Amino acid sequence: MKLFAPLALTLAVVTLSSPAHAQFQKPEDAVKYRKAAMTVMGAHFGRVGAMANGKVPFDAKVAADNMAVVETMSKLPWPGFVAGTDKGDTRALPEIWTEAADFKAGADKLQSEVSKLTSATKTGNLDAVKTAFGAVGQTCKACHDDYRKD
Amino acid sequence: MKLFAPLALTLAVVTLSSPAHAQFQKPEDAVKYRKAAMTVMGAHFGRVGAMANGKVPFDAKVAADNMAVVETMSKLPWPGFVAGTDKGDTRALPEIWTEAADFKAGADKLQSEVSKLTSATKTGNLDAVKTAFGAVGQTCKACHDDYRKD
Repeated sequence: MKLFAPLALTLAVVTLSSPAHAQFQKPEDAVKYRKAAMTVMGAHFGRVGAMANGKVPFDAKVAADNMAVVETMSKLPWPGFVAGTDKGDTRALPEIWTEAADFKAGADKLQSEVSKLTSATKTGNLDAVKTAFGAVGQTCKACHDDYRKD
Repeated sequence: MKLFAPLALTLAVVTLSSPAHAQFQKPEDAVKYRKAAMTVMGAHFGRVGAMANGKVPFDAKVAADNMAVVETMSKLPWPGFVAGTDKGDTRALPEIWTEAADFKAGADKLQSEVSKLTSATKTGNLDAVKTAFGAVGQTCKACHDDYRKD
């Protein structure tokens, strides 16, 4: 049976990847999509960050509205990491696919930390927002350090 | 009083624009953001289109999930059209700002047609989805024809 394990794994990866791949006509479409989702996420996350860092006055409603967008976006980029799309106009490192379970764990952690920050904005408690914002920022950084060039 | 009208108008525009402008540190950030929002919107709208056009089987749940993203995205690009950002890596035409009321009407119409398509996906009626999809597509095209280069 051992001889078949690599083939079975390959088939499993192909099967798991194909619904995502089918969502994009070309590999470069997947790259453009995931980068766009990250750009929108970063813009709205940055607005909450400006409040967490005291650069603009804290407004719980505005923060929660921005986090609603961040929360939607935090779910999107991952199917865009179609196998083999570490080429072209991207900083994605090949470890995204060779360490797929760890990459997925990072993506999952981002989404859960984002949810906590959304909840914090709704409490209107700036200290809670600061703490939760820091946790999201650490999650961003950890994945970028490991899986993004530069 | 007539002499002051242009100045008053200028001040009003500046005042109306500054909250949006303040959301972006540089004009190119606003361009990148609005393009990213359009990219994400287009990707998810396209998946509903594939169903409306019979290229993939209609799945009401998948269509509604995609439309939830489209609906969020349809609200986003507009503050990115900061005055003067018809330069750089963009196809935005200057008429966006000289015909600002008409451009805004198009943006508003997009959002209302998108809401109708979302509702249609929730009914599970493919004919209703096809009709509403066509209306959204016409709204996209009308604005792109008038306000986008090429």
